Amino acid sequence: MYREEIKVLDCTIRDGGLMNKWQFSDEYVKAVYDACLASGVDYMEIGYKSSEKSFSRDEVGVWKFCDDKDIRRVIGDNDTDLKLAAMADIGRIEPEDIAQAEDSMLDMIRVAAYVHQIDKAIWLAEHCMDKGYEVTINFMAVSTVMERDLDEALQDLAKSRVPIIYLVDSFGSMYCEQIELLAKKYQKLMPGKIIGVHMHNNMQLAFSNTVTGIIHNCNYLDATFMGIGRGAGNCPIEILMSFLKNPKYKLKPILQVIQDYMLDMQKNIDWGYHIPYLITGSLNQHPRSALKCMDDPETKNDFVGFFKQVSDKGDL
Amino acid sequence: MYREEIKVLDCTIRDGGLMNKWQFSDEYVKAVYDACLASGVDYMEIGYKSSEKSFSRDEVGVWKFCDDKDIRRVIGDNDTDLKLAAMADIGRIEPEDIAQAEDSMLDMIRVAAYVHQIDKAIWLAEHCMDKGYEVTINFMAVSTVMERDLDEALQDLAKSRVPIIYLVDSFGSMYCEQIELLAKKYQKLMPGKIIGVHMHNNMQLAFSNTVTGIIHNCNYLDATFMGIGRGAGNCPIEILMSFLKNPKYKLKPILQVIQDYMLDMQKNIDWGYHIPYLITGSLNQHPRSALKCMDDPETKNDFVGFFKQVSDKGDL
Repeated sequence: MYREEIKVLDCTIRDGGLMNKWQFSDEYVKAVYDACLASGVDYMEIGYKSSEKSFSRDEVGVWKFCDDKDIRRVIGDNDTDLKLAAMADIGRIEPEDIAQAEDSMLDMIRVAAYVHQIDKAIWLAEHCMDKGYEVTINFMAVSTVMERDLDEALQDLAKSRVPIIYLVDSFGSMYCEQIELLAKKYQKLMPGKIIGVHMHNNMQLAFSNTVTGIIHNCNYLDATFMGIGRGAGNCPIEILMSFLKNPKYKLKPILQVIQDYMLDMQKNIDWGYHIPYLITGSLNQHPRSALKCMDDPETKNDFVGFFKQVSDKGDL
Repeated sequence: MYREEIKVLDCTIRDGGLMNKWQFSDEYVKAVYDACLASGVDYMEIGYKSSEKSFSRDEVGVWKFCDDKDIRRVIGDNDTDLKLAAMADIGRIEPEDIAQAEDSMLDMIRVAAYVHQIDKAIWLAEHCMDKGYEVTINFMAVSTVMERDLDEALQDLAKSRVPIIYLVDSFGSMYCEQIELLAKKYQKLMPGKIIGVHMHNNMQLAFSNTVTGIIHNCNYLDATFMGIGRGAGNCPIEILMSFLKNPKYKLKPILQVIQDYMLDMQKNIDWGYHIPYLITGSLNQHPRSALKCMDDPETKNDFVGFFKQVSDKGDL
């Protein structure tokens, strides 16, 4: 009933942090960590690895940097099977910011890159491999990449040593037939690579697209508690856990964190499916205009006005 | 890019009414009607056709009965292409409660039935056809019907004169592979019938399951404004409209009703995806226990307690 190769990666702190500049309490991060551990989650992405030159600590919380001392303060030595990951954005980190894996609390570095950054991403990912990390490349915004360029990028990734490549629906604009086509293309052009999926919920498809990924042999699955993440958010880990059949996965510890922490968090952080995100998703646009619309009480609930603003379909 | 045969049926008042006993203001019903008309929606299900003996008008609103005088008071003569439908539940209506179609504001009667009621449903549906209505049978709760019984019911429906049969995910418990299998089975065992889909959102799959239905040649699509409906609700019509490519369908009039009416309505009516509905959906259970849990402020947010109560998986 289940596929042993499937791994669940929780990115609650990393992707959720996009909504509050990673200003989570230590208590909350520890609760998420404990729940991941108790639920059989395979990886916890605890934030970004960033250069101090790229961001000010006056603005962003410690999980934008993921220093060992902060990780250790909150979760201890992590002498467990739960692996810790951090994301690195091309251009916002220097190679020297990344310690040798044997000296680091982190087990995995995930390199996020747009199509024009793929060569840099391969370089950085292989650099991290050489330092002893597990690595992935998360290839963003493929819904706006022309087929010729996409194929070339995938062929370059195929030649790299990077073992895991993510199919990312950055704008929450894709549905099952597109996911299926891309999952098959990724496997055809990158034989032997493990494919992961990272989906967004603009059209309430984050979970179902993750299932489509599973059906088409994607094995690394990103999800977050209650779907927290930028804008419409991600695949809710509680739905994914209720779906997967591997007996090592447990739902109850996740439900406990949701009821203890996340219902209150919802009062202050406004993530999740909402009409402006549907509009940008269905138009295959970056959510930044929807985030701006949602940020202003004057425009937040003027869906018709926002639709007119971002669409040129004046007659709709 | 689009399939001419597809019809969108809005069941906002009928299914949404399950959450407020059909106590909608005339102004709201008119706004939904006007938006359906302007958006190119094909059918509007305006409520139930019920026997006066089955329900008290002290408890339920006029849309539980759908008298012509109420329909005409609110929307006028409906001299338009938008067809009006009402649902009839087996056992809650007498044949004599249904007028001749030529004397009725209604164009379509949808007969809802569980597997043990299929013969009665066929009788009632054919009775309505003989009175001049378009008819459907909405075959409920198939996720708990054993295959032998399901096949026999579908074979009986195949022999009937009823032209449209709905695949209904009553418990919101099915995902794409199950929808695909059932859609194919329905078409194989009922050749020539039109298949409709009515999905619920317990696992955030109502829209994606509707898309799966479209891919597998289901042509009648149920949806509601903002997904309003019992418990986790239905396929949100605004997502469906943003997805369908037929130029007759417009999104803007639907967005206008959502911003003018439904954001406020959400403060009083608590429909939509929520953890207790996820739990009953993922366990393939009727949502009544989740509705009860949600109704009581003491239990509403005790997800772990509810999960323990309805599941016998004590170790989860």
